[in-house]
Amino acid sequence: MHRRQEPPGNDMTYCVGLRLAEGLVLLSDTRTNAGVDNISTFSKMHVVERPGERLACMMTAGNLSVSQMVVNMVQEGFHSETLDGSYSLATTPSMFATAQLVGEAIRKAFAAHGEAMRAQSIPFDVSILLAGQVKGRRMRLFQVYSAGNFIEATEETPFLQIGEHKYGKPILDRAARYDTPLYDAIKLVLVSMDSTLRSNLSVGLPIDLLVYRKDACRVDLRRRIHGDDPYFRQISEQWSSALREAYLAIPRPEWARNGH
Amino acid sequence: MHRRQEPPGNDMTYCVGLRLAEGLVLLSDTRTNAGVDNISTFSKMHVVERPGERLACMMTAGNLSVSQMVVNMVQEGFHSETLDGSYSLATTPSMFATAQLVGEAIRKAFAAHGEAMRAQSIPFDVSILLAGQVKGRRMRLFQVYSAGNFIEATEETPFLQIGEHKYGKPILDRAARYDTPLYDAIKLVLVSMDSTLRSNLSVGLPIDLLVYRKDACRVDLRRRIHGDDPYFRQISEQWSSALREAYLAIPRPEWARNGH
Repeated sequence: MHRRQEPPGNDMTYCVGLRLAEGLVLLSDTRTNAGVDNISTFSKMHVVERPGERLACMMTAGNLSVSQMVVNMVQEGFHSETLDGSYSLATTPSMFATAQLVGEAIRKAFAAHGEAMRAQSIPFDVSILLAGQVKGRRMRLFQVYSAGNFIEATEETPFLQIGEHKYGKPILDRAARYDTPLYDAIKLVLVSMDSTLRSNLSVGLPIDLLVYRKDACRVDLRRRIHGDDPYFRQISEQWSSALREAYLAIPRPEWARNGH
Repeated sequence: MHRRQEPPGNDMTYCVGLRLAEGLVLLSDTRTNAGVDNISTFSKMHVVERPGERLACMMTAGNLSVSQMVVNMVQEGFHSETLDGSYSLATTPSMFATAQLVGEAIRKAFAAHGEAMRAQSIPFDVSILLAGQVKGRRMRLFQVYSAGNFIEATEETPFLQIGEHKYGKPILDRAARYDTPLYDAIKLVLVSMDSTLRSNLSVGLPIDLLVYRKDACRVDLRRRIHGDDPYFRQISEQWSSALREAYLAIPRPEWARNGH
């Protein structure tokens, strides 16, 4: 029941990242739409790992050609005017520098394709969650916008979302805290994703999960979760039961006690 | 954290209706925006009651001038080509005819103002939830679109939403059933509204609640709930606690048991 017509692209994606005291929890769906009648499964989670040295993870939403171009640029590296040198995801000195590099890649993609896309009425639409840590530097989680500017998750609001973010936000608003234990947070992002999958059929399984423990500079857990995953099904069912029980447990208002 | 720029108007409203076996539960916020820096409280819930004879309730979202024009037209009545006669909310022979009347009023409003609004780049944007019963006829809940066409709530999906609907949808998806008791459903719509208020600050208290018991053809309960309403605050707090407890109670996945 999608009541309003919204632009395609972003709505077919849901990615969420949590930056917690203990580490990072990142989750993305895999459904992409490269034109009408062309719905495919692509990974939206791009990981660069140099165990013990760095871990960087990008999750992308928006136009597939733009996001693939940006991912390729920062994976292969290019000369960055901002950073005054040639850098890639594997060589930047910090996550802040990585966010600058990603932002510059988006601006280069816009310079290359923005005008031609506009001529075809195709919005230049990309947003990226970027998370990770370079050894000795801070662990960070950024959201980079279509203009290449970016914001960062904070202790007050430890999560960032891209794509179809609204259905999965209420649980995060109420339960995601900076001090949430890392492996409890897995449940939170899975519930958030399940709420999205139920409400928007164009966001699709399988989903990709990555857990990172602060200062480890290596992946702690990475897993692709398919539709037949018993744990994901259990979460979905258990969550529905818990919500029903929770609202039934709330007393009726005094001003409606006459209701039967 | 509203991540995407969306058109104004509809996003500043949230209205929800449930058509249940026992009756109707209708809830709307009251915040409206008639231009920049002009945010006011208007009722979005318009009720026509002829006790024992009929109850009709309209809730509106979208451009305020359009929705007020439509509301005025159907309250005062006009000659309907579809119904072949002069009718108002108080005189239509059935709720289906009422939905036709509302749809025709929207098309007349579009004919009067649509072109001039488009010339000013203002979208002709209205959506209406219409619910009620005429004595001896069926109790119904419709959603009428900007084009005047409409859909109806079903036993499988007993709720309809207009405006900023996404944040409040997961709880309805999981817990709203056709056989939900009428006075339990009050809690459901209040939780749905609370989730929306938390995530979109432009949807605002107070909120208007109406409960209708099937075949009564009169209001069962009508209440305006303000920000200091102790019951609404209790629901909000109790719901947050319940969600946190519910996700903590879910076991961690076996494939993540090594996590501390």
